[in-house]
Amino acid sequence: MKVYGDLQSGNCLKVKMLLSFLNIKHEWIHVNILDGETKTVEFLSKYPNGKIPAVELDDGRYLCESNAILGYFSENTAFLPDDTYLKAKVYEWLFFEQYSHEPFIAVARFIQKYLGIPKEREAEYLSLQEGGHKALQLMENQLSKTKYLVGDEMTIADISLYTYSHVADEGGFDLMQYPEIKNWCHRTQSTPGYVGMA
Amino acid sequence: MKVYGDLQSGNCLKVKMLLSFLNIKHEWIHVNILDGETKTVEFLSKYPNGKIPAVELDDGRYLCESNAILGYFSENTAFLPDDTYLKAKVYEWLFFEQYSHEPFIAVARFIQKYLGIPKEREAEYLSLQEGGHKALQLMENQLSKTKYLVGDEMTIADISLYTYSHVADEGGFDLMQYPEIKNWCHRTQSTPGYVGMA
Ligand SMILES: N[C@@H](CCC(=O)N[C@@H](CS)C(=O)NCC(=O)O)C(=O)O
Ligand SMILES: N[C@@H](CCC(=O)N[C@@H](CS)C(=O)NCC(=O)O)C(=O)O
Repeated sequence: MKVYGDLQSGNCLKVKMLLSFLNIKHEWIHVNILDGETKTVEFLSKYPNGKIPAVELDDGRYLCESNAILGYFSENTAFLPDDTYLKAKVYEWLFFEQYSHEPFIAVARFIQKYLGIPKEREAEYLSLQEGGHKALQLMENQLSKTKYLVGDEMTIADISLYTYSHVADEGGFDLMQYPEIKNWCHRTQSTPGYVGMA
Repeated sequence: MKVYGDLQSGNCLKVKMLLSFLNIKHEWIHVNILDGETKTVEFLSKYPNGKIPAVELDDGRYLCESNAILGYFSENTAFLPDDTYLKAKVYEWLFFEQYSHEPFIAVARFIQKYLGIPKEREAEYLSLQEGGHKALQLMENQLSKTKYLVGDEMTIADISLYTYSHVADEGGFDLMQYPEIKNWCHRTQSTPGYVGMA
């Protein structure tokens, strides 16, 4: 199996983390977005949306969308509950991540870390702070009630939300305000099989 | 069971459509976002992210995120394949919808239909056109190969992508350029149990 990604991207790191926790063998192929490697004819013929992470299974079938990939590999493992309601709560967090968390925190981080907050993107950068803090506060509240986002065991909801949360400071979000998130990050980092941004 | 929503919202209509196709009884409670009804203390105590659609199950448990709700009700029905790979392809479309489709098409529609494209949001409105067309083109390509987005049967991927696609013209996207999408919309509309925006 091949996985196309960049470990500095939280969306890609999600997949690396789950595969590592589950001990699933794969070839990791580094892809450089800024060099246009997701926009080649070959890449687009497999993954029409032109984004990483992207998986090529052993039988040649393709899969993209980080959280769909997490769902695929976690089925029938401890990372995705069997119970229909709990499974839906996990997916609730995954959709929250893509709609209410990543577009604020990952984008602010990109503007700060990769672009150095250029003048023409300063207003956009600042406008992302409120939504990012709202998302972090919501996680903080949940983590003050349960050890992980859905109950007391780590699921793919935690993996998905961990990757950009643990580097939220690189987007200007001070995690000192979120002690439960900080503890949860430490718990995640000390889980056997943990891999970080290389 | 109670469902909180507004049928003019594609995110809410998704849920109404699936419940109707599956003939699942529920009480629909209209919520007016513009009047702040998703920001009351009571609403936020159940749904901390303050968004509709939102479901209150008969046993008093809560669920939000339109696509997680679709996943919950479609489990073990024809709208969600059993096969792990096909199920992941359905979720791939659901995440695509929230990340690469809705933020362009639903937001452009909101600015045009509800706000009348005010001067201060004109640049934003225009900037959404490219991403919206990219998403529609990707669907068009898939629908030229398969009758529905994942194979030849309707799944929740179709329901999720249908709701904002079928009113994309209200966001400035001319569907005449997408004959496969138009046919697929007609197919959806003639499915027994179909409900539209009230
Ligand atoms: N919804 C997608 C988002 C993936 C995404 O935005 N990937 C970025 C890297 S973090 C990318 O490939 N960007 C290149 C592009 O959009 O052109 C997912 O969760 O996988
Ligand atoms: N990711 C959410 C998005 C839901 C959403 O944005 N709902 C809008 C109505 S279409 C809303 O409730 N907006 C009120 C707000 O955000 O304050 C979902 O798919 O359910």
